[in-house]
Amino acid sequence: MFREIFASVKKRQPLVHCITNYVTVNDVANMILACGGSPIMADDAAEAAEITSICDALVINIGTLNARTIESMILAGERANALGHPVILDPVGAGASSLRTETAFRLLEKVKFAVIRGNSSEIKTVASGIGNTRGVDAATEDNLAETVAMARALSRETGAVIAITGAIDVVTDEKETYICRNGVPEMSRITGTGCMLDGVIAAYLAANPDEPVKAAAAAVSAEGLAGELALARVHREDGGLSSLHTYLIDAVGRMDVETWQKGEKIAVYER
Amino acid sequence: MFREIFASVKKRQPLVHCITNYVTVNDVANMILACGGSPIMADDAAEAAEITSICDALVINIGTLNARTIESMILAGERANALGHPVILDPVGAGASSLRTETAFRLLEKVKFAVIRGNSSEIKTVASGIGNTRGVDAATEDNLAETVAMARALSRETGAVIAITGAIDVVTDEKETYICRNGVPEMSRITGTGCMLDGVIAAYLAANPDEPVKAAAAAVSAEGLAGELALARVHREDGGLSSLHTYLIDAVGRMDVETWQKGEKIAVYER
Amino acid sequence: MFREIFASVKKRQPLVHCITNYVTVNDVANMILACGGSPIMADDAAEAAEITSICDALVINIGTLNARTIESMILAGERANALGHPVILDPVGAGASSLRTETAFRLLEKVKFAVIRGNSSEIKTVASGIGNTRGVDAATEDNLAETVAMARALSRETGAVIAITGAIDVVTDEKETYICRNGVPEMSRITGTGCMLDGVIAAYLAANPDEPVKAAAAAVSAEGLAGELALARVHREDGGLSSLHTYLIDAVGRMDVETWQKGEKIAVYER
Repeated sequence: MFREIFASVKKRQPLVHCITNYVTVNDVANMILACGGSPIMADDAAEAAEITSICDALVINIGTLNARTIESMILAGERANALGHPVILDPVGAGASSLRTETAFRLLEKVKFAVIRGNSSEIKTVASGIGNTRGVDAATEDNLAETVAMARALSRETGAVIAITGAIDVVTDEKETYICRNGVPEMSRITGTGCMLDGVIAAYLAANPDEPVKAAAAAVSAEGLAGELALARVHREDGGLSSLHTYLIDAVGRMDVETWQKGEKIAVYER
Repeated sequence: MFREIFASVKKRQPLVHCITNYVTVNDVANMILACGGSPIMADDAAEAAEITSICDALVINIGTLNARTIESMILAGERANALGHPVILDPVGAGASSLRTETAFRLLEKVKFAVIRGNSSEIKTVASGIGNTRGVDAATEDNLAETVAMARALSRETGAVIAITGAIDVVTDEKETYICRNGVPEMSRITGTGCMLDGVIAAYLAANPDEPVKAAAAAVSAEGLAGELALARVHREDGGLSSLHTYLIDAVGRMDVETWQKGEKIAVYER
Repeated sequence: MFREIFASVKKRQPLVHCITNYVTVNDVANMILACGGSPIMADDAAEAAEITSICDALVINIGTLNARTIESMILAGERANALGHPVILDPVGAGASSLRTETAFRLLEKVKFAVIRGNSSEIKTVASGIGNTRGVDAATEDNLAETVAMARALSRETGAVIAITGAIDVVTDEKETYICRNGVPEMSRITGTGCMLDGVIAAYLAANPDEPVKAAAAAVSAEGLAGELALARVHREDGGLSSLHTYLIDAVGRMDVETWQKGEKIAVYER
């Protein structure tokens, strides 16, 4: 199954509309291209819905939100819903300011998301907004059961696949849960690995509309594995963090099904 | 002639004002520096015309346009026209939304452009707006005559050099037409090669005000050749798409007249 | 003393709020991470003060200012002052447009800065706004006394550490003056070395609140030395300007106290 998910992205070349932050937008565009999709960035309310109409998926990332772009997010999200396109939410910094937290809640009210991806703190904030106030920390081997329970509850309430990324990644809908252990800690020392992952998830879902949870898990694993390959190359070449950044995109662009199958660390979580 | 065009950029170090998209703006700035110019980015109506006044050329790229920046584009364009500075239009995504298409038409009404650069679909949309509805696909060896005819007609109607870039590039004014076959397909898998080219064209025109069509052709060829050199280095070093991105800018920065003359694939189109 | 300043950044991992330009924002975020801090970018008035409250320092960079973000700069600056967080001003392009010059003056009226960093032309413009109209050119070995005098006068009037960066860097408050000769001319051919330095200075000051002038001098020297190491690597690998850009961030991320102490070229200026 995962094999086909991976292959279909490169075959279908999905077009991904991104309303994302200006910090990491270049990397998001290049990562979508690297994984086999095509990006379009358009954030003005006068065209957001129209641009979404010609695309296959939508990413909404609130990393540098403002009053103008929040309206565009809602307009594009509603149009994507009407057309049945998968919409990915990245509630960057939810919990860090009222604007971010309230915007995340407002988006959840107005738009049905196929995937909500964030770190544990962001996902916890999102969960609190719909009545789930049980806090959890970043997933570790010790608190995995708790993290999965929180993610499953949020999935049930939103209908979205929940992806909590960190040292260990949890990807779940109500029925299936995948734990992914790809990736390296150094990825947290370059900005945008999460934002880039949003784009990869969007491309994977657009190319595999019937398997959202598997597609999201495959995307999470593929970028994590690319990070491992990139770090090995950094060490071979005596490089540093910005080389890791470059090689991460290189590795996603070069990855084939065989490399991915050999390196993926996805496990079904059955409890 | 081309030899002097190339050399004069590094001698004159033109200052290029860019109102461009936030996706590729860092690359545009670095590419202008690499080719021998200096960039200034300023997109607010309160300063757009004033900043243009101290520059030598202006790039207007509508890649992430919004109501605020459209006004700045017009103000800066009018001022650049008044001062006789070359203005480059990149109608990114014209045809993909009404906002983009109408903004391209509005800019053409208000501002006289020295160069209009886009892919065949964008240029076709621009041409349709001034009554030319003959569609063409991306230039190939087979439909070259048609593409050239379309570009020449648009040049006649706008007074601008038209640069249609793709696998084969067409650069023309009414009298001279150059076909450029530099470049590699992998360049389309990194975002911003077109936007970066806008900046290079602007620097080349500012340094060679009397030879706009030759300057634009030289810029197109120089970036394409840099892409070829960059790809060869990617292959030698077993790299990927983000390495190509890095090496493309490296190669533009390292290019000298000799390298360029040895590698350029510019042909006069005489039919 | 410098040894502890350098070490405490990596220990304290300060959180730096940046309201900066969209040209180099990705590099600023990655450079803050590389030097041991954590970046947050947030530029909307609806959250600017709140985001600043959870941070340890604030960078205000007017590189692509507009009416919306200017208000956010003031709100965040006032809050940071109230909380005693160091605020760094980069008056990018002050003197190039009235909007930039007036915004710099307005910021100086409303916000107390811990450091003002710019090139000599920008600092001269800032100084003129508070009655100091003595112009100076970029610091050279010949006009160093004059540059230092201007910087000291501006420091006295603003209470801020003044950092004038160029081929030779001057960092001063009223009492202590450091001259830094690290860095390479090639750094001026990549965009954003100044903006990235703002982020490094902010992280260094947040981690060393009692030693602002030494912390700023250490930051200036660390990035300059990283540029020297990066250029040496570019030469070894036969690279170019974009490789220099990558290796600069690599080198900041890899720098340790020993490397820095061996390479720093900071001198006390005693006249």
